[in-house]
Amino acid sequence: MNSIQRRFAELATENAPGQEVRLQSTSSESAFLGGVIEGKPVDFSHGDVDAFLPAPGALDAFLEGYRRGGSQAYTEYLGDAAVRDIVADRLGAFTGAPPSAAEDLIVTPGTQGALFLAMGATVTSGTKVAVVEPDYFANRKLVRFFDGVLVPVELDYLGSTGRAGLNLDQLEAAFRDGAQVLVLSNPNNPTGVIYSEAEIDAIARLADKFGATVIVDQLYSRLLYEGHAYTHLRARSAARENLITIMGPSKTESLSGFRLGVAFGASAIVERMAKLQAIVSLRAAGYSQAVLNIWLAEPDGWMRDRIRQHQAIRNDLVGILSGVDGLALRTPEAGSYLFPRLPELTISSIDFVRALRQQAGVTVTPGVEFGPRSFESIRFNYSQNHEAAVAAVERTAALIDRYRVQRVARRA
Amino acid sequence: MNSIQRRFAELATENAPGQEVRLQSTSSESAFLGGVIEGKPVDFSHGDVDAFLPAPGALDAFLEGYRRGGSQAYTEYLGDAAVRDIVADRLGAFTGAPPSAAEDLIVTPGTQGALFLAMGATVTSGTKVAVVEPDYFANRKLVRFFDGVLVPVELDYLGSTGRAGLNLDQLEAAFRDGAQVLVLSNPNNPTGVIYSEAEIDAIARLADKFGATVIVDQLYSRLLYEGHAYTHLRARSAARENLITIMGPSKTESLSGFRLGVAFGASAIVERMAKLQAIVSLRAAGYSQAVLNIWLAEPDGWMRDRIRQHQAIRNDLVGILSGVDGLALRTPEAGSYLFPRLPELTISSIDFVRALRQQAGVTVTPGVEFGPRSFESIRFNYSQNHEAAVAAVERTAALIDRYRVQRVARRA
Repeated sequence: MNSIQRRFAELATENAPGQEVRLQSTSSESAFLGGVIEGKPVDFSHGDVDAFLPAPGALDAFLEGYRRGGSQAYTEYLGDAAVRDIVADRLGAFTGAPPSAAEDLIVTPGTQGALFLAMGATVTSGTKVAVVEPDYFANRKLVRFFDGVLVPVELDYLGSTGRAGLNLDQLEAAFRDGAQVLVLSNPNNPTGVIYSEAEIDAIARLADKFGATVIVDQLYSRLLYEGHAYTHLRARSAARENLITIMGPSKTESLSGFRLGVAFGASAIVERMAKLQAIVSLRAAGYSQAVLNIWLAEPDGWMRDRIRQHQAIRNDLVGILSGVDGLALRTPEAGSYLFPRLPELTISSIDFVRALRQQAGVTVTPGVEFGPRSFESIRFNYSQNHEAAVAAVERTAALIDRYRVQRVARRA
Repeated sequence: MNSIQRRFAELATENAPGQEVRLQSTSSESAFLGGVIEGKPVDFSHGDVDAFLPAPGALDAFLEGYRRGGSQAYTEYLGDAAVRDIVADRLGAFTGAPPSAAEDLIVTPGTQGALFLAMGATVTSGTKVAVVEPDYFANRKLVRFFDGVLVPVELDYLGSTGRAGLNLDQLEAAFRDGAQVLVLSNPNNPTGVIYSEAEIDAIARLADKFGATVIVDQLYSRLLYEGHAYTHLRARSAARENLITIMGPSKTESLSGFRLGVAFGASAIVERMAKLQAIVSLRAAGYSQAVLNIWLAEPDGWMRDRIRQHQAIRNDLVGILSGVDGLALRTPEAGSYLFPRLPELTISSIDFVRALRQQAGVTVTPGVEFGPRSFESIRFNYSQNHEAAVAAVERTAALIDRYRVQRVARRA
């Protein structure tokens, strides 16, 4: 294998969300037990924008952009200046620390695009990067693609309450050992836990002390459930010149089809990101950028309703899964991900994910995508039709029972 | 400067097309002579999609995609399967060598996205890459970004007729010296010349002989002027497993605002490109992808008219510039770029580009962007309002006269 083949062998996508259609059927099917449990198929690998419709006004904003013509088609690499003005203001209000629209903000093709550019602007051959485990799967892949060195930092989300569970001793050791970058999502993807104010302050203090850059993916920070408080790293950080915050309207606002994200923070890093964007894709789709004009300014009550609906689904799914013997779960505090750890099964968790799809019409993402110690977990994105999601998670519970190693008596 | 800063210093974008708005005014203005020549400003750094409107049906196709909802928002990383089916068929008809829609084709965020992914899938630290000079500026930047080694191959476009002017001896020497990749645009950007059938055959033969991968950017191959023939490398290549062809609807079809491109060819490379896309931006904007349903299937006569209109502008601009003493020019054979080499001037060509913008309202791209030996050239994208383009190039001719070193008597 030459070096380019090796590099890409590490970028496996066959279990990545939404790519299941490309999986060939495998011999693992011979280990499957029993028949199919009928029910409406649900794809939990990503949110269903047919169940939670795009935020109101998005299409009209796009059409306005289209009508604007050339100036909207060919924006600066950073993104349309008028759009950046509006978005910078609103992000300032949301996070408590206004970025400069001219220098601190870049519009990207999705938050994935923002993450790629941020990592590309800070990680090169041999750069040590502290990566939380579990966390969004692309974080680790990006470190490898840019030839950096992974330094894992554990998130004990199952063993903690009132905090996400970041191992701050490991984080300090990582920085002390030379990690120049920390990348994390908050709320954490895949677990839906929120970093506490004390954890955020500790991250800011440690990054500042060691001069490390922090890339924080806050994609889901608006979908915050009752009783939880969210602390923006950006608002607490002494060393804001080493911080990039990433957000976007793809999830809570269901605008993924427009491929939009933003990164904001340290102007020196944003400038490098723009240079990189110039050779990666030039800019986020010009007409799409106009959709950001309605972002963070939805009609009164719209976000409250969206949160309420997701919270109701969350409560039902947590209720079902809490009844499954041996399953471990932490209730999500924000976002729409649920990350149960399965009990011991007679088949591997990867095969269980396949069985789930073929025998119960339920598509989930295998936990190993999010970190090597999450092999026994599966991720649900429950931004779905409520009724269908409940039925699908009931089928999941039934299938766990079918494959569990020691059949213990269920509660009667 | 640390290694990441050095890497980005090489990705300068301040003279890149469309980014002029970010230029600070500089001391060079003190060298400017005379006053402003009034006239309607024209930005020749990219085509004007308000002068040449998006291909008919594009917006309707987008709206259909939007209405399709979730399945269009979340496509495979390769792109929507139905779209790929349609596009693969039409690209087969256009190039004479049909790709497999399932394995040989990827939809990308613009042809820039396709180029980035193709280079990222083939170039790693130390990979020698043969790059034509002059050629599209991102080619060289991409080689540097992926830490490859540039091996320049000269294009003698001014000294050749009936062929583009590729130095085939240099190309063979590059391959012999270990170049594993050749990247080129055809028609050549910035000169608008087309590689002859014999040149294409020679490229195919040499790449095959040395087992090199060829990435050919055919973005402008549809806008082909009267009296010229176009040879698709893909149709002539013995070694198609080492070939990636890139196209897209951003230029001739004026669909740049949707950010769409395609790459097709060797399935092993396309597979790596999809893996890379998964961490770069996931996919081309989902709703935008639906716009490809109308691509390469425009109404009868539409492309003929578009070619005719561009040819008429080309003829007028070539006519004006041919009357400028000391200016060297080759008439474009395809596309909408014109790349005159200026006579000797009293100011640097970079300052002349600035003077042109400030004193004549004419924005062009400096030749040095396209190769180190093109310092004295400037690039026009003449996909513009005809009348405004003619007036702007007349102002350009006047400004060349103002700044020329030896004022010779003009023809009376």
